[in-house]
Amino acid sequence: MLPPIVADAEQPQASDQISLLYGLADPTLFPSDDLAVAATAVLADDAAAALNYGNVYSGLLDHIIERLQRQGIHADYDNIFIGYGSNQILGLLPQVFVDVDDIVIIEGPSFLGAIKRFRLGGARLISIPVDHAGMNIDILEQTLIDLQQQNIRPRFIYTIPNYHNPTGVTMTLERRRKLVALAAEYGVVVVEDNAYGDLGFEDLTPTSLAVLDSERWVLHIGTFSKILAPGLRLGWACGHPDIIRRLIEFKPEGLTGPFISRVVARYCAEGRLDRHIERLVAHYRQKRDTMIDAIKRSFPIDVTVQTPEGGFFVWCKLPPDMRALKLAPIAAANGVTFLPGTECYADGQGDDAIRLAFSYQSSENIAQGIAKLGAAMDALRWR
Amino acid sequence: MLPPIVADAEQPQASDQISLLYGLADPTLFPSDDLAVAATAVLADDAAAALNYGNVYSGLLDHIIERLQRQGIHADYDNIFIGYGSNQILGLLPQVFVDVDDIVIIEGPSFLGAIKRFRLGGARLISIPVDHAGMNIDILEQTLIDLQQQNIRPRFIYTIPNYHNPTGVTMTLERRRKLVALAAEYGVVVVEDNAYGDLGFEDLTPTSLAVLDSERWVLHIGTFSKILAPGLRLGWACGHPDIIRRLIEFKPEGLTGPFISRVVARYCAEGRLDRHIERLVAHYRQKRDTMIDAIKRSFPIDVTVQTPEGGFFVWCKLPPDMRALKLAPIAAANGVTFLPGTECYADGQGDDAIRLAFSYQSSENIAQGIAKLGAAMDALRWR
Repeated sequence: MLPPIVADAEQPQASDQISLLYGLADPTLFPSDDLAVAATAVLADDAAAALNYGNVYSGLLDHIIERLQRQGIHADYDNIFIGYGSNQILGLLPQVFVDVDDIVIIEGPSFLGAIKRFRLGGARLISIPVDHAGMNIDILEQTLIDLQQQNIRPRFIYTIPNYHNPTGVTMTLERRRKLVALAAEYGVVVVEDNAYGDLGFEDLTPTSLAVLDSERWVLHIGTFSKILAPGLRLGWACGHPDIIRRLIEFKPEGLTGPFISRVVARYCAEGRLDRHIERLVAHYRQKRDTMIDAIKRSFPIDVTVQTPEGGFFVWCKLPPDMRALKLAPIAAANGVTFLPGTECYADGQGDDAIRLAFSYQSSENIAQGIAKLGAAMDALRWR
Repeated sequence: MLPPIVADAEQPQASDQISLLYGLADPTLFPSDDLAVAATAVLADDAAAALNYGNVYSGLLDHIIERLQRQGIHADYDNIFIGYGSNQILGLLPQVFVDVDDIVIIEGPSFLGAIKRFRLGGARLISIPVDHAGMNIDILEQTLIDLQQQNIRPRFIYTIPNYHNPTGVTMTLERRRKLVALAAEYGVVVVEDNAYGDLGFEDLTPTSLAVLDSERWVLHIGTFSKILAPGLRLGWACGHPDIIRRLIEFKPEGLTGPFISRVVARYCAEGRLDRHIERLVAHYRQKRDTMIDAIKRSFPIDVTVQTPEGGFFVWCKLPPDMRALKLAPIAAANGVTFLPGTECYADGQGDDAIRLAFSYQSSENIAQGIAKLGAAMDALRWR
């Protein structure tokens, strides 16, 4: 049994374990003071609207639209849905799209929260392998052909093209173009989860699927969780107005947090969020480097790793004599935890891989945790 | 077409209309300064937990449990679910309980948001009339008997026993006892929506259904929206651990707002919320009195009203020659809006009644609005 998916952020350091398990934000980077200023200003200037029932706050919509337009994504008021984190949006997707036993196509591996939500919503999941260049689009195409021959149209394709969770891989531009073309050809919505998109460590920013998509088959999802603070619980979707209307219809509690929306919009103003993201990128890049360096020092040579160009995670492929579920208890006894790859697949695969989060721990702890994990690997191999 | 259910709180006074339409909180009563102090303190002392992913905040659970226990309701950690307003909980109920075409029993009239959510969730709604003493329990019993003879067990019974929305009526103790007994006898969950329960204007506080229920058939729902601020979006449910677990499972975005939960808990501490509620009660009582007095002065004598003992609304029964949907445009032309009773029924009834909210407008506006509405009634009658 894994610890709960949401770690106990109350007591993150309560045990001696170094947790590389969850993609928590680095708490030392939260802009608490600026957020307090924003909250105080909202309550001083705008309490009547912020504290009552209300429509979605246009100031936050404006900020999100401006961010999307900067990436080249067409966005207007009727293209945007704001929810309690991108997780809420993922949770609503089955209600919007799926009847029981409808097919949803995901990547294998994929974000475990999405797998859980889509399943709970009644979807049958088909996994398309991810390799060093992202989702394998040839296999996707063959799958779409096979399904079409059975008269089955999948309800949507879920992908994380940038700094993929869990593999860290970024989809190539060629594959992106082909994916968008397939979506239009087969009439299937593509859900582009861009949670980590702003946290790229290289100079080149990948082109969003939504930019390549002229027919609005792409529903582009973003979140303030990775670039500001998960505890605020705010995310957005950008897509065809019909999909946005359906999301609003199924959102159980009406429109999202009048107060928290205003606090975040106030915080983001005057380029504050952009400057903060620059700081985050530098910091997370350095922790990624620390983890990769430590892995090179501490892991057996036949554990293979692709250095992620952004995001929160390093994905390690294990050699045949080393299984993730066997390694986990030995590592835990050694003082370090990770996510077994089995948690990231819908079909029981993944015992040959582990996911390591470098987002939460300090560089010191990362180096120490990787050393402990390397020792656990040796212990598993030579015992 | 009515304006959107959630009024544009941005511009509440933009038009010359006096809106008695929605149960918005009175913005002059928001404790903005105390909330700013709470938000600043949380961000100063507890940002690492408040801004990251995290489990439900135990400090808020403790406060809610303490409130419930004071009312005599048995509550422990595994009895409590926290959501984004009680609306989210109502929206989750169909997912937890209802398959398409399952029966849900509601009151006629009832809260329009609940009707909408239950319908969207696939429920077939059966309405039990509400009279001066609350839901008519004899008709409920006969309905349960009839359904049992058809081998149908309704999925739940939704009731607002205290200061009912829209009628303002409070269910008698005798009926409460009988309702809880019927729930146990027929094995049907009772959803007790207690949104207005703390806003009673008389000395006697009605006994909650959850107090009378020894077998935990009652799911008791509460919210900070009416007693603190709707814009914070926090509500709770208290009930059988199995139901609570199901609510958590279906909540699309995981646990509710680490930041906002801490801000509210911090605000509530040291009796602050209780003192605030006392202030609210005095204020809303006075506005209720203003509205009732104005109605006595301005409405035709054959428009009948039962003075509500709490809550936000006055429900007016119209004489046969005066229909709500005919009155609405004349009233709007006269500068006042209200909720036609038709919006509060699942079965097309309600053209013989209107709901007037005294919660949002100032006493001055209430008196003026009622005078305008009285003039509209005269105009409809004598034109």
